[in-house]
Amino acid sequence: MNYKTIFRIVGLMLLVEGAALLISLLIAWLAGGSDVMAFAWSSLACLVPGLLLVMATRKSSMMISRTEGFLIVTLVWLIFSLFGTLPYIFSRTIPGFADAFFETMSGFTTTGASVVDNLETFPKGILFWRALTHWLGGMGIIVLFLTMMPAFGIGGMQLYSAEVPGMTVEKISPRIYQTARIVWGVYVLLTLVEVILLMFGGMSLFDSVCHAFATMATGGFSTKQASIAFWPSPYIQYVITLFMFLAGTNFTLLYFAGRGKFSRLFRDEEFRYYFLFVLGFTILIFSGLLISTKLPAEQAFRDSLFTVVSVITTTGFVTADYLMWRPVLYMLVFILFFFGGSTGSTGGGVKIMRIVLLLKNSYYELRRIIHPSGVIPVKFNKHAIEPRVISNVLAFFMFYLMVFFVSTVILMIFVGDMDTSMGAVASCLGNIGPGLGSVGPVFTYSAVPDAGKVFLSLLMMLGRLELFTVLVIFSPSFWTDQ
Amino acid sequence: MNYKTIFRIVGLMLLVEGAALLISLLIAWLAGGSDVMAFAWSSLACLVPGLLLVMATRKSSMMISRTEGFLIVTLVWLIFSLFGTLPYIFSRTIPGFADAFFETMSGFTTTGASVVDNLETFPKGILFWRALTHWLGGMGIIVLFLTMMPAFGIGGMQLYSAEVPGMTVEKISPRIYQTARIVWGVYVLLTLVEVILLMFGGMSLFDSVCHAFATMATGGFSTKQASIAFWPSPYIQYVITLFMFLAGTNFTLLYFAGRGKFSRLFRDEEFRYYFLFVLGFTILIFSGLLISTKLPAEQAFRDSLFTVVSVITTTGFVTADYLMWRPVLYMLVFILFFFGGSTGSTGGGVKIMRIVLLLKNSYYELRRIIHPSGVIPVKFNKHAIEPRVISNVLAFFMFYLMVFFVSTVILMIFVGDMDTSMGAVASCLGNIGPGLGSVGPVFTYSAVPDAGKVFLSLLMMLGRLELFTVLVIFSPSFWTDQ
Repeated sequence: MNYKTIFRIVGLMLLVEGAALLISLLIAWLAGGSDVMAFAWSSLACLVPGLLLVMATRKSSMMISRTEGFLIVTLVWLIFSLFGTLPYIFSRTIPGFADAFFETMSGFTTTGASVVDNLETFPKGILFWRALTHWLGGMGIIVLFLTMMPAFGIGGMQLYSAEVPGMTVEKISPRIYQTARIVWGVYVLLTLVEVILLMFGGMSLFDSVCHAFATMATGGFSTKQASIAFWPSPYIQYVITLFMFLAGTNFTLLYFAGRGKFSRLFRDEEFRYYFLFVLGFTILIFSGLLISTKLPAEQAFRDSLFTVVSVITTTGFVTADYLMWRPVLYMLVFILFFFGGSTGSTGGGVKIMRIVLLLKNSYYELRRIIHPSGVIPVKFNKHAIEPRVISNVLAFFMFYLMVFFVSTVILMIFVGDMDTSMGAVASCLGNIGPGLGSVGPVFTYSAVPDAGKVFLSLLMMLGRLELFTVLVIFSPSFWTDQ
Repeated sequence: MNYKTIFRIVGLMLLVEGAALLISLLIAWLAGGSDVMAFAWSSLACLVPGLLLVMATRKSSMMISRTEGFLIVTLVWLIFSLFGTLPYIFSRTIPGFADAFFETMSGFTTTGASVVDNLETFPKGILFWRALTHWLGGMGIIVLFLTMMPAFGIGGMQLYSAEVPGMTVEKISPRIYQTARIVWGVYVLLTLVEVILLMFGGMSLFDSVCHAFATMATGGFSTKQASIAFWPSPYIQYVITLFMFLAGTNFTLLYFAGRGKFSRLFRDEEFRYYFLFVLGFTILIFSGLLISTKLPAEQAFRDSLFTVVSVITTTGFVTADYLMWRPVLYMLVFILFFFGGSTGSTGGGVKIMRIVLLLKNSYYELRRIIHPSGVIPVKFNKHAIEPRVISNVLAFFMFYLMVFFVSTVILMIFVGDMDTSMGAVASCLGNIGPGLGSVGPVFTYSAVPDAGKVFLSLLMMLGRLELFTVLVIFSPSFWTDQ
């Protein structure tokens, strides 16, 4: 293990976080809030150790092995979330460490689950920092997708890279920087466009920026306790729905679509299924709402579409309390907790590609049983998928379920009731935000005991880093087979 | 499709069912119950069309193709369950068709879920028929395992056949009859031993026989509304626990163990995991009960062990209402709903072998990620498992989950609440019996609307026939690619 390089990267990352805190300091100062000093101290607390670490490791090489990569990624998310608590703690907006850690991890993992019950009293600097953690987390996820995912041999990524020809799979190459520039460009541009469109709808510049950050990262932190329900304007809600949908789409596809190759979108199988899932679930829930409530049709449609897109993309914004719907309807929402965005998007969860590969493999198995002698591989985007990719996706899904079940049991020790535990675990692991029961869409996680909050924070990290990144570190061969 | 042969087999099966009804008629007559005429008419209703079918198809060949096999197995379970309702309906013990169909399917699929709220008023003939449906279902499952499972390319079966050397995998061979004789021998012998041991504990001959039938088939119908809780005797409860455990074990292993090769048991990897799962969950629940209740240690241990074995083997006998335990403890029980017995046992559910293969594949994937160039196959019983077996197990598990989620949503339309729906679907699909919420261990399924009951009955069949048997029939290539 090349600890010197690891320390250097951690140091560099602290400098990045310090810079982000300086930007928030600027916002806090412009808004004349009480949180200026909190940001001053917080940025110092990042920049000083960051600088010291970087200087102390000046002569280290920047070559990292694949196993070191796993460790670094996990460390980066952990350290970002630890230092990111400082503004909350120093400003006494979220004084408890467990709460602040939960809120920060929820930000950087683009989860959007919150422990804050008095959001309207928060100074603007803190609200901005909260939204910025989402946006930085989203950026981080894009880097992660480009650099680490190929190492996992994940089918999704192999396709993703196929879109940008020539990307090597084994180490960071100049082409990855090129792709990263494209994808970040899409990310920044869409954020800007959303800010402008939200302002058109009457949202303030500040709220527009914060919500655009949270939307494009598929995060879900709002500046209002009521989330998007605060703005009953259909225009604003549809704009946010559209951008959540885009944030859950493979960003390279958006790049091609933006350059006029619109047909590429629907030629991509993952996008087609993503679109169909959104459509299908929206129709089911919309029909259910029409039958079981007296909502006007347009609002029923908007609530269904918004909720479906918000959950499938793992954003977690709220316009309607789905727990007030018929149980069968919120059960449909809960099933969506196990879907997630497209590969190469900022969305979390299992991901559309994996769900589709698993479903296809099951369907193909029926044919294999009828024709036992034939070789019938799963096809995706017209390519035959190697069995080892299927096995990888299977392993991912099994870990996901195992973590879900075991964590639900563990959380029940702290929380007691089954719905709340299942909802909280599925929501945090999938980086969504709202859950079921007492962590439903109109509640926060403030009532969960501290130990439970720290536990859920670690689940967010596990989910956001696609399980494997974190899990391999705990596998014996990680430490022995160097 | 060779319909003539299919009709002939259906005819023969009706004769078998008619014979089983005649045995029940004898019991009813000996007990002097009011149900004698009901059995007389029921057996006629089976024997007459059975005879006519067999005679009309006298000249058909007995060769069946693999696809015809799937259809026949599904038809046999369906027709057995349809005709099996007659005694309940004629005797007016269960007058409604949906109720009677649910009860009969629950019997033949060895599920043990009941709609009967007044079991103590039932005549003995009916109680015997109810237990006999379990025992016949268990026999049927053994035949199914020997004849159909190899066609699915299921890893479990391939191992199972490896225990009895030379069994061919593709078609019914004389060796299969030989194995069937061995396995049926184990089944009958263990049933007899259990009857004797239960009588030693003070249970009547009649109750002993009925409970032995229900135990060895991993069914779960009792002759008492309170199930095994009716007999507080620790001896009786431990005897039933032991035989449930045996019924969930691969019967060929029991055969070898019975012939003195006891070490074979623990040399078998599936058995080792089965044992470990039972041990692990019992310890967890036992500790939980000690901490959270004031039960005497022995009873807490007995309740934990009994419940764990009853649920993992998919028997469904009840000595304690696990829903009265702390939620975290019944959540552990609910997780066991997704395990199931060993391959080659009468237990239903996902099966230990599949669970272990899925878990192992996930664990191995971590090593594959660390060593991307190495080929690391999953090993089971010291053999490398082919990727196509893993893919088959994955497909099975995905179908299982899909059916679970979709069915939960569908049942919620009839039932309303989430716990009850999840519990009922998991329980019926896994052929267990008791569920959660209002279908918990001290309740029955009588409150579920008729449509829901028929739906759950079909789920029992789907689960019992290992999904694929039924699902392939609905796959387009089943009907086109002959």
